[in-house]
Amino acid sequence: MVNISIIGAGSVAFSMSFIRDLCVTESLWGSKVTLMDISKDRLNMIHNLTVRYMKETKANLKIETTTNRKDALDDAEFVLCTVKVGGYKPMETEREIAERHGYYRGIGDRVCDYYGGFGAYHQLKFFLELARDMEDLCPDAWLIETANPVFEGTTLISRETKIKTIGVCHGHFGYKKMAKTLGLSLKDVNVEVAGFNHCVWMTHFLYKGRDAYPLLDEWIEEKAEKYWKSEEFLKGLPWETEQMSPAAVDMYKQFGLFPIGDTVRSASPWWYHTDLETKKRWFGPTGGFDSEIGWSIYLKYRESRLKRMQSIYSDPSASLTKEFPPVMSGEQHIPIIDSIANDKEKILQLNIPNKNSISGIPDDVVVEIPAVVSGRGVQGIHVGTLPKRLMLYVMIPRMMRMEQILQAFKEGDRKSLILALMEDPRTKSYEQARSLVDELLAQPWNAEAARHYR
Amino acid sequence: MVNISIIGAGSVAFSMSFIRDLCVTESLWGSKVTLMDISKDRLNMIHNLTVRYMKETKANLKIETTTNRKDALDDAEFVLCTVKVGGYKPMETEREIAERHGYYRGIGDRVCDYYGGFGAYHQLKFFLELARDMEDLCPDAWLIETANPVFEGTTLISRETKIKTIGVCHGHFGYKKMAKTLGLSLKDVNVEVAGFNHCVWMTHFLYKGRDAYPLLDEWIEEKAEKYWKSEEFLKGLPWETEQMSPAAVDMYKQFGLFPIGDTVRSASPWWYHTDLETKKRWFGPTGGFDSEIGWSIYLKYRESRLKRMQSIYSDPSASLTKEFPPVMSGEQHIPIIDSIANDKEKILQLNIPNKNSISGIPDDVVVEIPAVVSGRGVQGIHVGTLPKRLMLYVMIPRMMRMEQILQAFKEGDRKSLILALMEDPRTKSYEQARSLVDELLAQPWNAEAARHYR
Repeated sequence: MVNISIIGAGSVAFSMSFIRDLCVTESLWGSKVTLMDISKDRLNMIHNLTVRYMKETKANLKIETTTNRKDALDDAEFVLCTVKVGGYKPMETEREIAERHGYYRGIGDRVCDYYGGFGAYHQLKFFLELARDMEDLCPDAWLIETANPVFEGTTLISRETKIKTIGVCHGHFGYKKMAKTLGLSLKDVNVEVAGFNHCVWMTHFLYKGRDAYPLLDEWIEEKAEKYWKSEEFLKGLPWETEQMSPAAVDMYKQFGLFPIGDTVRSASPWWYHTDLETKKRWFGPTGGFDSEIGWSIYLKYRESRLKRMQSIYSDPSASLTKEFPPVMSGEQHIPIIDSIANDKEKILQLNIPNKNSISGIPDDVVVEIPAVVSGRGVQGIHVGTLPKRLMLYVMIPRMMRMEQILQAFKEGDRKSLILALMEDPRTKSYEQARSLVDELLAQPWNAEAARHYR
Repeated sequence: MVNISIIGAGSVAFSMSFIRDLCVTESLWGSKVTLMDISKDRLNMIHNLTVRYMKETKANLKIETTTNRKDALDDAEFVLCTVKVGGYKPMETEREIAERHGYYRGIGDRVCDYYGGFGAYHQLKFFLELARDMEDLCPDAWLIETANPVFEGTTLISRETKIKTIGVCHGHFGYKKMAKTLGLSLKDVNVEVAGFNHCVWMTHFLYKGRDAYPLLDEWIEEKAEKYWKSEEFLKGLPWETEQMSPAAVDMYKQFGLFPIGDTVRSASPWWYHTDLETKKRWFGPTGGFDSEIGWSIYLKYRESRLKRMQSIYSDPSASLTKEFPPVMSGEQHIPIIDSIANDKEKILQLNIPNKNSISGIPDDVVVEIPAVVSGRGVQGIHVGTLPKRLMLYVMIPRMMRMEQILQAFKEGDRKSLILALMEDPRTKSYEQARSLVDELLAQPWNAEAARHYR
């Protein structure tokens, strides 16, 4: 059986999905699972939950814990990474600083939990160090990367190291919400989704074997307005209602393919995001996931989820399988391991180097595409050409932003950070951008980054 | 000897340079030169001046005139194109309209005489028709293209037709102004300039065989401030003083190579151009070539040049060689013809498909690079890698703008014209961009374009 290491196992929500999936996947029983985190408390908690879940499901896994990353990597064959360096607090402060400089809801991508410190410095540095350690300690292991920024991070690792990296996200499952809203039964739906992480588009949509885009067009024409007045839309959680919002429909009209998942928020054009009123018009009453309203809903949701975990943790008699039924979570991490380790051919949605799958994107840029996973490894399927307008106004600009972030990171180039900010439509002067960059880098948690970006 | 056709020969300033160079280049004597223009008056004028210049220089050329383009192409071996469809008036009105919509000095590139009608429609359509006629009538002829937009036009023709196209511009000679300002004798200066037309950068700078960038750095450090207070800078013509302006020096600092010629104006970042005061700070007291001051100086200069031509035209006793001394004008068109027709190997600065000369630019994008011209044809020399920041923040964005213009043109895509305008930092809302595009396309001279861009 295989050796699996979870780096950042203290991310309890993620880790519980992995544990659940491992316990459900009998073909991986007997494997060794190493839980690694720098926080002993969090490690104790996830260890306790893991052991209890195993007992309830009668699963057979060998569990180890460590706070030492190198120990965790020593004989690993699969490394799962969910690390968010420094937590969420600095990000909130950085957003407040940016708002004072004239950037509503902060700079960076429009997913609040994106960059983990200005210029993605802390995350990218961590990713690279992890991959370099793997080159020393387990050079043949797979790195399954879930921590953001997935696009920048996996592209960086695959360019700079020899480690086989796979980026994993669940955003593409947004198509299920779309299909359900259209009233289609999922088992008859066949969807292909492709692009970059958080910027993926429905390249094929079949229902009972036939092109179903006309069904979507019909829904837009005849039912969308009614849906946008429904309780379901008006009262729903922001990250659930975005998928069929006016924003998604307009993006489809502008760019020619329907956007899926986080794409609706993070790849939508700037003019949906200028202020709260505008955001509400495009994303519904919460203004979407990343508005001040949507984000505070999310933070509360996070908090209550953590509390729930803690109460289960402190009550040894609580049933874990009641909270997390022993069925596959939907996350792709464990299925990837099962497919590779046990040579079970499966098609999954993964972030891997393009290698000519999407036309017009260089081979060494990581794309999110369907890929065949098996004992042979991971093989992307050919997607082909995307609509010209989508390439020119969304895909290539997003790719260039990734290149800017990586260039600034690799060369420690503060000028590049400023120039990238000059492309933000809210920037009115060079001085504005420079003073924001300087103030962000002057924060105590960015001391190392400040030395790096000269 | 060869057959040369000048399409748009009524552009007297350009044509006189060609005639002058032909009369000076004895190895091309005996050639047939067909002057073509749709204006009979202008044609008579240039014919008269040509015949007189030939007489004064005792040159031997066979001159024909026609208002019929197809006649001019019939047996052509070299076709020179200087056509500006519709003249300058519509452009001025279009700029006024754009200013009313919030776009100071209009939209489009920052060279006023660039696009010849919104979205470059009229120019691109003309280029393509001309090249298609050439495919029928003189498929082996060379098209030497000087009319703007050179970058978009030559890329379009080389992608869409089989015609061999060379784009020619004199902007790169700006390096002479730079060398003179530094006090260097031109004969000891060796410069390589590369990029896209109107976006070219000094990739090598040697003086007496040694890297001379340190001399430029020294000038910036020690003499620039004084130069910017000199009569030469403060009273000079805007298109002559831009080369060593604070804008050029800042661009060098931002992007790592010194910008040459029109680059200083048309490839400089938006924040040099927000208003007249800002333009003055970067480009000197006129605010540069394309400010309201600089442009009115240019229009007056144009007018006086035309008047001068007309007075010479109407005075049969006037000496033409006194006005235009019989030495090479500096334009590259006739040297290209001489090199190809007479197999004289020469290195010229030309706009030709990249074919891997500049790294990171696709092969089918036209770049401006040094090329060897001879009986073998035109062969670009390898330039290599440009600085990363220059690529990320200037070259690739400029290339993407070209791709946007060509895609909108090829697909008749009005949405694309609007989306391109959404990337202008002055655009505050989608409605603003849409209403401007609609109003521009509603102008009488754009009736055909309005039908094209749906």
